[in-house]
Formats: sequence, C-alpha cells, structure tokens
Amino acid sequence: MSGSLAVIGLGPGDPGLLTASAQAALDGAQDLIGYVPYVARVPERPGLVRHASDNRVEVDRARHALDLAASGRRVAVVSGGDPGVFAMAAAVFEAVEHGDPAWRHLAITVEPGITAMLAAAARCGAPLGGDFCALSLSDNLKPWDVITARLDAVLRADFVLALYNPISSARPWQLGAALGLAAEIRVPETPVVFARAVTRPDEAIRVMSLAEAREAPADMATLVIVGASGTRLIPRGAGERPFVYTPRSVPGAGPA
Amino acid sequence: MSGSLAVIGLGPGDPGLLTASAQAALDGAQDLIGYVPYVARVPERPGLVRHASDNRVEVDRARHALDLAASGRRVAVVSGGDPGVFAMAAAVFEAVEHGDPAWRHLAITVEPGITAMLAAAARCGAPLGGDFCALSLSDNLKPWDVITARLDAVLRADFVLALYNPISSARPWQLGAALGLAAEIRVPETPVVFARAVTRPDEAIRVMSLAEAREAPADMATLVIVGASGTRLIPRGAGERPFVYTPRSVPGAGPA
Repeated sequence: MSGSLAVIGLGPGDPGLLTASAQAALDGAQDLIGYVPYVARVPERPGLVRHASDNRVEVDRARHALDLAASGRRVAVVSGGDPGVFAMAAAVFEAVEHGDPAWRHLAITVEPGITAMLAAAARCGAPLGGDFCALSLSDNLKPWDVITARLDAVLRADFVLALYNPISSARPWQLGAALGLAAEIRVPETPVVFARAVTRPDEAIRVMSLAEAREAPADMATLVIVGASGTRLIPRGAGERPFVYTPRSVPGAGPA
Repeated sequence: MSGSLAVIGLGPGDPGLLTASAQAALDGAQDLIGYVPYVARVPERPGLVRHASDNRVEVDRARHALDLAASGRRVAVVSGGDPGVFAMAAAVFEAVEHGDPAWRHLAITVEPGITAMLAAAARCGAPLGGDFCALSLSDNLKPWDVITARLDAVLRADFVLALYNPISSARPWQLGAALGLAAEIRVPETPVVFARAVTRPDEAIRVMSLAEAREAPADMATLVIVGASGTRLIPRGAGERPFVYTPRSVPGAGPA
C-alpha cells in the first residue's frame, strides 16, 4: 500500500507553537480529518480534501482515515495539543487493532505537539516542575470511581495534577467533585491554575488558591493545574499575575 | 529594566520538533545559557554570546541568566525537551524567588517544547493514551522513599508511567528498583518502552515486556514508559516494531 496516515498535533492554538515537522506533514497531506475546530485551523489549499466531523466519533473518524490511507491517499488526522494525550492517536491505534489486518502495515506516524498542560505551565511559570500526572476528568470512557481512586492516589502521593476535560455541559459537577477531593487532602492555599484557551485570542489564565478555585467557573476549553504541597507563588507588582512554580527539590533529599 | 529572559525548550533533538516560537526566541537572543549539549544544538552567529556550563549547577546558571537580563541583555536559557518538565524553568523561578527582588519585574517568558515522553510515545504509537504520570527517578533532589511511595501510588492506581532520569553512573540501581516495584504490582507481560535519544541520530527504541525490561540496559539518555493494565501491543510484520497503545476506555464506564 502506498498510502500513509499521519496523526498530527496542532498544539494549543498559536500557529507559532506548531512544530516544523507537523507543518511539513500537513503540507504533504491529501486528506485532512478531524474534529471541526481543529480542521478549521488548517488553511484551505488546492488538492487538500477536508473531512471535518463532530466530536465523540473518534473511532469512526479513525476508521475513515485508515480506509483512505489503505486506498493510497496521504491522510492527516489532526488533534489539538498532542495527539497522544487524550486525543486522536489512541483512537487510531484502537481502530488498527480491531480493523482490517492490512492496516497494521500502513505507514502510520504520529507528530507530537505541545499539549495543553505544557502550554499552560509555560504561561504562568513552572508549576509542573516536580513529579506530575495528567488525568482526564471525563467519565464518558471510564467509571467515575476509577477517576476518584486515581485522584485520591496522586493527591496523597503529592503529585502536581493536570486535569484535562474538566467540565462540559453534559458533565457539570465532576470538576467541583475533584477539587472537593483535593481540598480534603491539600491545604486551602494550594495554588490552582485555570488556563482557558491557552495561546488563543480568547486566552484567560487565572491563578487562585484551591479554596477560590472551588467557587470559580470553568468550561471545556479550560486546563486545570492543582499544585503539590511544594508549589509556590511569587508575588509581583500590582496588576501582574504572580509566577507559579514547583521547586525541583523535595525536603529530605540526601547528598547527591 | 529593558532586558529579558526566555527559557526555551529545544525539544528532543530533531530540529523539526522545535516550535517556530522557540526558534524566534533563539533568534532574538544576545546571550545563550545552558548545559553544554543543549547550547551546542544552537548554531553560532555573530552577536550571540554563548555560556555553556556543566550539569548540576542549575541555580547558579539561572542566577547568571537573571543577572544578565537585569543588566539589559536579551537572554535565552535553553533546555532539552520542555523547560518546565524536569528542566531549567523551575530552577529559574527558584532563583527569582530567592534572589534580587527586582528580578520579579523582568520580562520572563517560557517557550514550551516537545518533552521526551511525548516524542517517545509518538515514535511507538500512543502509550500515553490514558491517564499517565511523569516521575523523575533521580534522588539527587528528593528522598528515595518519596520516589518509591509515589511509584507505589501510581502503579496501584493504574496510571501509565513515564520515568525521567532513570539511571546515571552515580545512580546505577534506581531504575532496577523501580521496575522491581512495578513487577510486584503489574503482570510480567506489561509493555515497557525504553526510548533512547529519541529523534537524534543515535535513537534506539525498544519495546519489551516488563520481565524483559528488568534485564535490559539503559542510560541517562533513556526515557522509560511503563504501561498500565490496559496498555496493548499490536504485532506487525517480521522486523517491524509492534505498535504500543493505551486505549482511552477503562472497562466499566457508564453510558456517555
């Protein structure tokens, strides 16, 4: 088969955060497949066929992409952020495993991208400076009790938390529940970042305490970072957002 | 003060994985500061003063950068991967917090980069397709018992693990101990990826079982990914590395 499939991370939104390699893969594609707002980020050009689809049909979209690639087309599947982090790459490999055996021999590549937690962290300092975890709060694909057990484990083990898919109209209470669990384990002054639409024109970044975060609004474009016990704020001038960072050291380390 | 400090992620090594924004920040710099191999990645040009330093002097290097920026220079501090993930950004903000109060008002920006776990994951499929955590195995800056407690927590809660700084000549046994702990909790067939020097000319990626990984050599350029209970291999043809991915779903999820 001469076709190929590239699963491409578009980064958080700013075209300056796309890698050159991802751009080259986009430039070489004949078919562009993805969720409507991600397809819309890629400029139209002659010879590029666009297939924008609704959210929540990831595996159908992946099968469509694999079918096109198997027919000899150069196909690009686009995701926001990094395709391997709560995005399309896993859906593509699910489709490969359960689909036409010939798909296993296609040239499938993944172009990494700047995922939301890295972009959000960069905007406010270095909150991911220590050990951290990335957790999706969506219970569409995993039971809520698995999510709470994972939250409990990483809160007690003092990881920084990056929470993806914190809230949507169909999942209005999950973020509040997660922050409530955090408040049982971490102090109310724990720094929390709500990073909305990072690097896009409607970017809004708020640095708050955990107590404040429990009352703050968020939406599905928000990435939430919950600090660990060591995470600190550095106050700056009036009107300047404080820096947030997590020191590399944990007290009690022995000599190097 | 008219100086500025950009903390820049160079990505895993392939220049194609640098973002345009990071490239622009490098192009605008007057002083380049970093660990020798990262400074070496940036081409020399007239007007760019290079200050390469040894590893393990991160805070000294950060203070030097802040001093230069405070004197009016446009300074770039370079890190491999993403500067906010086990790299220079946290050291810079530690220096800011404990240093000259005027440093808090400098224009300090962080340019995110493709961190090793994203590049490694992209090379072999989508092993980070579910919840995952990033943990440094270095006990230079945190006690080993904190590391083992964190490993135990995330292994039991079924996260995928990305292990940074797995081994060095001064820390020869930590990776083996971590994989031994994993073997107490996860089955011997658990997929493990050793991704060495990802995207660089000497790249070497091995996909193994956890049992095999316990016997396999690694070095400080290696990023280790330990799969969760759901992580799967997709066998391909003879001589082709299998794809590795973690499905998005955890069994038992309710209706969407």
